[in-house]
Amino acid sequence: MKREVYEQARARTLEFFEKAHIVLTETEKANVEVADFGLNDLENTGLQLVTYVNTDRVCAKEMVLFPGQTCPEHEHVPFGNWEGKEETFRCRYGTVYLYVSGEPSPTPKAQPPKGSEQYYTVFHEIVLHPGEQYIIYPCTKHWFQAGPQGAVVSEFSTTSHDEFDQFTDPNIQRLPTIED
Amino acid sequence: MKREVYEQARARTLEFFEKAHIVLTETEKANVEVADFGLNDLENTGLQLVTYVNTDRVCAKEMVLFPGQTCPEHEHVPFGNWEGKEETFRCRYGTVYLYVSGEPSPTPKAQPPKGSEQYYTVFHEIVLHPGEQYIIYPCTKHWFQAGPQGAVVSEFSTTSHDEFDQFTDPNIQRLPTIED
Repeated sequence: MKREVYEQARARTLEFFEKAHIVLTETEKANVEVADFGLNDLENTGLQLVTYVNTDRVCAKEMVLFPGQTCPEHEHVPFGNWEGKEETFRCRYGTVYLYVSGEPSPTPKAQPPKGSEQYYTVFHEIVLHPGEQYIIYPCTKHWFQAGPQGAVVSEFSTTSHDEFDQFTDPNIQRLPTIED
Repeated sequence: MKREVYEQARARTLEFFEKAHIVLTETEKANVEVADFGLNDLENTGLQLVTYVNTDRVCAKEMVLFPGQTCPEHEHVPFGNWEGKEETFRCRYGTVYLYVSGEPSPTPKAQPPKGSEQYYTVFHEIVLHPGEQYIIYPCTKHWFQAGPQGAVVSEFSTTSHDEFDQFTDPNIQRLPTIED
């Protein structure tokens, strides 16, 4: 994405962290990760995050979704001796609509971003408000979307190997690039 | 500890979570863990916590220390096939003085609780303010104390087996009991 898009998204992300009373260091603020998944449609499909720690055993992140923004359908699969990522999402601010493989919910509250419906499955719906959480085990396809206020979500997980996340949409590149 | 002591500490813990803007469910609020380490001196030696998640791979907790309260010296050792707990402390509110094995700091800001000095080592000092964090690896003796405002600290870790924590003070019982 363009540097300008990145910087605007970074500033907006910090506003959401402030609303959620999440305190960050200056280094963390300067290095917010903005993932547009290579789709160039950040407003609708994207995720903003700060990784607090990612060792070879444990990872913790703080994530921001802008109002109505979707993190697209993907799963964390095993590779080599690694079992695949297990993650717990805990909502801190706003509302998150989370969809995980399982019995489809008949009237889901969120819709996939327009034009990309073919890459999203109507899974079981979990709605997370502040203080509510959900564990996502490996090999569980999932996607999630913020409600109209946006959302701040803590993630507690095993090691993140984001580059190996498997997205349903073949056009997605998980690791962001910034063009100056 | 007596039920009355527990309930007072629980209510006080919730005040600190409010100051730190940490949102908890009613179930979490009702089940705050108050650890007095069997020493019956909670004001000086103790720890209050809410465990968000503790699976066989990942654990996340939110901890409260009252002003000047100390979590006593201990370490997380391997057993069986388990490597021992790795934990990251991230300060959310107040100040934490953390002491970990390593070159002793010449003028530590915190002192062990009176009468228990023999169970504390003058380790390397790390001072954590909101947004600051530190990783503690297995087999690292450590203890920590809140500054005068108290402290709220997030812990991101591998699985917790609190019952196997090894405390320097042989009088300590990690798992709390409540007498009605």
